[in-house]
Amino acid sequence: MNIHWHERKKRFYERMLEDKEIGYLDPGIERLLEAFFHRDGLYTTSSCIGRITVLYGLYPWERDSTSIIFKKHGKIDEETVRYYIENPSYEHLWLRVTGPIVHVICKDEKWAQWIIEIARKSGFKHSCIFSMKDDIVVEIMSSIQVTMPLKIGNTPLVCTEKLSDTVALFNSLWEKGVSSAESLRRLVESSPDPSPSSAS
Amino acid sequence: MNIHWHERKKRFYERMLEDKEIGYLDPGIERLLEAFFHRDGLYTTSSCIGRITVLYGLYPWERDSTSIIFKKHGKIDEETVRYYIENPSYEHLWLRVTGPIVHVICKDEKWAQWIIEIARKSGFKHSCIFSMKDDIVVEIMSSIQVTMPLKIGNTPLVCTEKLSDTVALFNSLWEKGVSSAESLRRLVESSPDPSPSSAS
Repeated sequence: MNIHWHERKKRFYERMLEDKEIGYLDPGIERLLEAFFHRDGLYTTSSCIGRITVLYGLYPWERDSTSIIFKKHGKIDEETVRYYIENPSYEHLWLRVTGPIVHVICKDEKWAQWIIEIARKSGFKHSCIFSMKDDIVVEIMSSIQVTMPLKIGNTPLVCTEKLSDTVALFNSLWEKGVSSAESLRRLVESSPDPSPSSAS
Repeated sequence: MNIHWHERKKRFYERMLEDKEIGYLDPGIERLLEAFFHRDGLYTTSSCIGRITVLYGLYPWERDSTSIIFKKHGKIDEETVRYYIENPSYEHLWLRVTGPIVHVICKDEKWAQWIIEIARKSGFKHSCIFSMKDDIVVEIMSSIQVTMPLKIGNTPLVCTEKLSDTVALFNSLWEKGVSSAESLRRLVESSPDPSPSSAS
């Protein structure tokens, strides 16, 4: 699997175009990914524009024991959330909104530091080097994450009379994530290359 | 500031003992930090055993515009949360629980990869290399994070009749964080040193 870095980048670019073609790419994220691909030392392998999910399980962060029963890369409506709350077969329900996430492969440490700095400036505070085993993988992760318990057992913890306010809040947070992806794109496009003198 | 790595480690160990002395160290975290200091290639600079906070502001992740109005490294009671909800001067309130966080300085990449793997095995999925500028800083971060909007404007979004259930849930999540710190400590103590052949 020792294919040249630029060759792998080319393949991932083609895959991104295919994903777009078949509708697998999140709507609105393409321009951000293009901005990454246009930089010499970067490419992306996976991405999410941000999403609102309803989770069923004791612990929303445990992938093995918790199921996503509803997912949308966009705004949701009150009726959807009410349906799950009122359905007694779903105990332990959570409503979660998360901002954008992008996995970036960097040619070297210089580019990794460059993109981490830009990401943090755009409000993606949790961005860091996720792995250095083969490639340098940077995870660009939005700080936007709100996870609200909807009900535990079959006891609703949310005020069901004010559910429209809760849904409006989650929708506005999702939109804030999309705006932060735009800020990130502008900085990725406009920032000068990392300085050669800071090479490691 | 070019002090030898082991010298800096020694200073941070002394600072940790001082912090303990003056009550600045989170209760229950000392054994975990000791485990890190006992490993040749690691030391810690800051830590949190996990906490429950009440936040006041539009966006709970924005440090500049959001204030922590209540914080406890332990379990909370219903009356405290009710007090803030019923106080009309606090609009946009959030209840948050977070699991343990530890910042670890690693002697080299080998130790950084070693501790990241151990942390992820213990459920600290968001652990990653936070910085490589001077030292290699690994952030060990629990996946436990639940941030619930209590009220937006002065409209409560939580069901105030079931507030005791919400508080019990947050307390149980905080305890789960403490247990995960114990699992991490056991693995840090018992895992063999990184293999020299994997040195970078």
